[in-house]
Amino acid sequence: MPDLQKSRDTRNISIDKVGVKDIRYPIVLLDKYREQQHTVARINMYVDLPEQFKGTHMSRFIEILNRYHGEISVDNLEEILGEMQQRLDAGRAHLELSFPYFIEKRAPVSGARGLMEYQCRMIGTLSDHFDFVIEAEVPVTSLCPCSREISEVGAHNQRSLVRVQIRYREHVWLEDLIATVEGCASAPVYSLLKREDEKAVTEQAYHNPMFVEDMVREVTRKLKENSEISWFRVECENFESIHNHSAYAQIEMTTGD
Amino acid sequence: MPDLQKSRDTRNISIDKVGVKDIRYPIVLLDKYREQQHTVARINMYVDLPEQFKGTHMSRFIEILNRYHGEISVDNLEEILGEMQQRLDAGRAHLELSFPYFIEKRAPVSGARGLMEYQCRMIGTLSDHFDFVIEAEVPVTSLCPCSREISEVGAHNQRSLVRVQIRYREHVWLEDLIATVEGCASAPVYSLLKREDEKAVTEQAYHNPMFVEDMVREVTRKLKENSEISWFRVECENFESIHNHSAYAQIEMTTGD
Amino acid sequence: MPDLQKSRDTRNISIDKVGVKDIRYPIVLLDKYREQQHTVARINMYVDLPEQFKGTHMSRFIEILNRYHGEISVDNLEEILGEMQQRLDAGRAHLELSFPYFIEKRAPVSGARGLMEYQCRMIGTLSDHFDFVIEAEVPVTSLCPCSREISEVGAHNQRSLVRVQIRYREHVWLEDLIATVEGCASAPVYSLLKREDEKAVTEQAYHNPMFVEDMVREVTRKLKENSEISWFRVECENFESIHNHSAYAQIEMTTGD
Amino acid sequence: MPDLQKSRDTRNISIDKVGVKDIRYPIVLLDKYREQQHTVARINMYVDLPEQFKGTHMSRFIEILNRYHGEISVDNLEEILGEMQQRLDAGRAHLELSFPYFIEKRAPVSGARGLMEYQCRMIGTLSDHFDFVIEAEVPVTSLCPCSREISEVGAHNQRSLVRVQIRYREHVWLEDLIATVEGCASAPVYSLLKREDEKAVTEQAYHNPMFVEDMVREVTRKLKENSEISWFRVECENFESIHNHSAYAQIEMTTGD
Repeated sequence: MPDLQKSRDTRNISIDKVGVKDIRYPIVLLDKYREQQHTVARINMYVDLPEQFKGTHMSRFIEILNRYHGEISVDNLEEILGEMQQRLDAGRAHLELSFPYFIEKRAPVSGARGLMEYQCRMIGTLSDHFDFVIEAEVPVTSLCPCSREISEVGAHNQRSLVRVQIRYREHVWLEDLIATVEGCASAPVYSLLKREDEKAVTEQAYHNPMFVEDMVREVTRKLKENSEISWFRVECENFESIHNHSAYAQIEMTTGD
Repeated sequence: MPDLQKSRDTRNISIDKVGVKDIRYPIVLLDKYREQQHTVARINMYVDLPEQFKGTHMSRFIEILNRYHGEISVDNLEEILGEMQQRLDAGRAHLELSFPYFIEKRAPVSGARGLMEYQCRMIGTLSDHFDFVIEAEVPVTSLCPCSREISEVGAHNQRSLVRVQIRYREHVWLEDLIATVEGCASAPVYSLLKREDEKAVTEQAYHNPMFVEDMVREVTRKLKENSEISWFRVECENFESIHNHSAYAQIEMTTGD
Repeated sequence: MPDLQKSRDTRNISIDKVGVKDIRYPIVLLDKYREQQHTVARINMYVDLPEQFKGTHMSRFIEILNRYHGEISVDNLEEILGEMQQRLDAGRAHLELSFPYFIEKRAPVSGARGLMEYQCRMIGTLSDHFDFVIEAEVPVTSLCPCSREISEVGAHNQRSLVRVQIRYREHVWLEDLIATVEGCASAPVYSLLKREDEKAVTEQAYHNPMFVEDMVREVTRKLKENSEISWFRVECENFESIHNHSAYAQIEMTTGD
Repeated sequence: MPDLQKSRDTRNISIDKVGVKDIRYPIVLLDKYREQQHTVARINMYVDLPEQFKGTHMSRFIEILNRYHGEISVDNLEEILGEMQQRLDAGRAHLELSFPYFIEKRAPVSGARGLMEYQCRMIGTLSDHFDFVIEAEVPVTSLCPCSREISEVGAHNQRSLVRVQIRYREHVWLEDLIATVEGCASAPVYSLLKREDEKAVTEQAYHNPMFVEDMVREVTRKLKENSEISWFRVECENFESIHNHSAYAQIEMTTGD
């Protein structure tokens, strides 16, 4: 059977990324506290394609994924990318995994346990060197300092989403990255709160008002202090309770060693 | 050229709905205050198909849509459905239009003007009688009565979305339906608020705490009082500022005359 | 601490559904072939609320969920609903779980194994009786009979999505429901196909052209023959390769015993 | 009333982007053929914030938007950005508008008119110079060369989406950019096709098979030839009819003058 993909292309145009997108796949991740965690990822796998080849071999991406079934982790991402490079004759291989990640969290007063979900992502690229970015989306509460200052009672507050991406020198756990972000908001959010917890969280937020600008700056301050981290981008979006649009802020930084 | 769709089907299975889905199309609507409003709809058009026919004629749906281009409104929905029935030899015709609808709203103290967007829907069905449902999604603020009661300062609040669908005897304007819903929350939301407005809205919400249950009940109370309305469903979703999930409530009711 | 939710409401309006929405949660399901399957669900939990109560107790929903952590299945859904009824003093309890479900599938010629993902849903309601609906979304290929008939070469074809919901008398496995649907299209879709498989699938689709109407009728025919099934709804959406909108069909049927 | 935003921040951290996100707003655009076109945009507006200021003034973004209500276009984007810079004391202003854009298109044989929708975007940034990117998402048909080559009859084909972003030296109309992309696929897609058109489009695609790699290369070839264009990125995603995932390719290029 002819292999059209292997045939020669004469347009002299190389392709930056080619591959498969939006594959849903069950994965097992290393978990800081529970050894391993089962979740479901949405996966993109790309390589570059030199100008002389007409096409890449899409089925090989899926074969590689199947071989690592149940064993995908931060630890072997570089190995998977190496196999993509090799089997697809590529100079550069790229892999993205987006997945919900669950962490048990205790309510601040009652200690009631609940499971919080964080949407996370791992983005690996292998060319002559290995590049790795890890991302977490952390929902938090923000309470508006201006509203609190000018109002006789109360202050508008809302759910916010902080998205943070980092490159690190030594390994940083998702659990630790998320905890850092949760410490930089008016208050964390929880899946389970009893009445005594609701009181505590409401008061914590009121005593700790933060603009969207304050939250990205606080996260920046914390990430700059962490010598493991070499680069980061932090974005925060407040789903304003008084508007039908969001307030948004972003900082990106390469940190010296 | 053969017309396969017209050929005979022998499976003795009639089809409830068949047609075209997710067509995006610019429409012009009647507006209570500004004569007309340009917006963009997502449109579904279906008919039933008797058991003896193999298929419907999909291109005719688009032709009908094109004929009414720029003139789709509550007033001629029944006429459009009649044409669908006729041209597609159908007993029942069904048309759904989902679209953002804009209403100018003034900030409560400064009077600053802003444009609020509401996602709305018209759902018409014509068989031996004409059935029409109109829907609006209204973002509002809700402030938690429990949090206010038990906390020394503040109270958690958040953006909520009230979705209301009605059937009416006489015409009800979207503008009036939306205003009714906005009066049943802790506070409305606005696109533009100056500092004096932010103070007013914050305090209004604090003095008017409402559970998700209160909001659907208040909307219910108001819609029941309106003798134009013969049926409604109201749903409310609070995007909780202290959780990463929503609180939700729903009431559906046929109201006597 | 006061319990506002328990206080008396005087509006004389009962609430049909009230509870928590869009909780993401890891679950373990019974799997026909592999004993159990880990996946991640999006969960809604509602009860009704009698007119005399001001509010329900949202945190109890999460507590119930946590108690069944890792043990949610078709087999104990009624038990979970019973606990919701009891702990929330409700007449009616409602639980929805939406989740990706994975089934290993072999390519038709090479036998290469791949993992297919199907978006599924379980919807349970307990009042004086237990009602249970199971849903699967099955991606398939459809090839247009009209295009094949009138064209000298080729025929347009596309990815389609069949959504099927059933109520059953005896247990029906998701695996079997999905296999039934896959047999009612121009061809199934696969996650992994080698060249010989691609040839087989292309030719199978060409020799088996089906309108969107044909697919819902074929599924209907198969489900009617199954005496386990007491009710079903089947919808099919073709993401037309020649249009930017979809073709759509739907049949709903209660089947006698 | 105090203006907290203006107060001094001592963390020494400037913010790259801060502003408002996901505002829906009706806009009127210049249209190559019909003078103007009404549509609805989703808008993001950001500025940078120097380290000494605690916050930006969110309501001013909305005020600027309101002032240009009904007059937003490629021609005055730089002016709007200039006003953002000035009113918000910013070094850099950023504006993104995403909107559906409609173009009338005639079926290839019957000449029947239909309205095609393309999701488009304008991204403007003003610092010491003005940077402008225009984007269009163009749905097309792709037919697999490999499937055609190896199969006795037929060939799998599907809807694909080509996203193209350009920077230009002289003005390039969205209408022309979209036409260029539509010429680089197996066939264009249409909103309205009669039977004779369906035959023509089916055969055109069969005689013009293209991999996802071919489509991004063809678009690249065309854009490189256009001396108006100084930079582009083209991505193509095939919603494979034989898989439940997509094939994807991307090329980015700065073109010399």
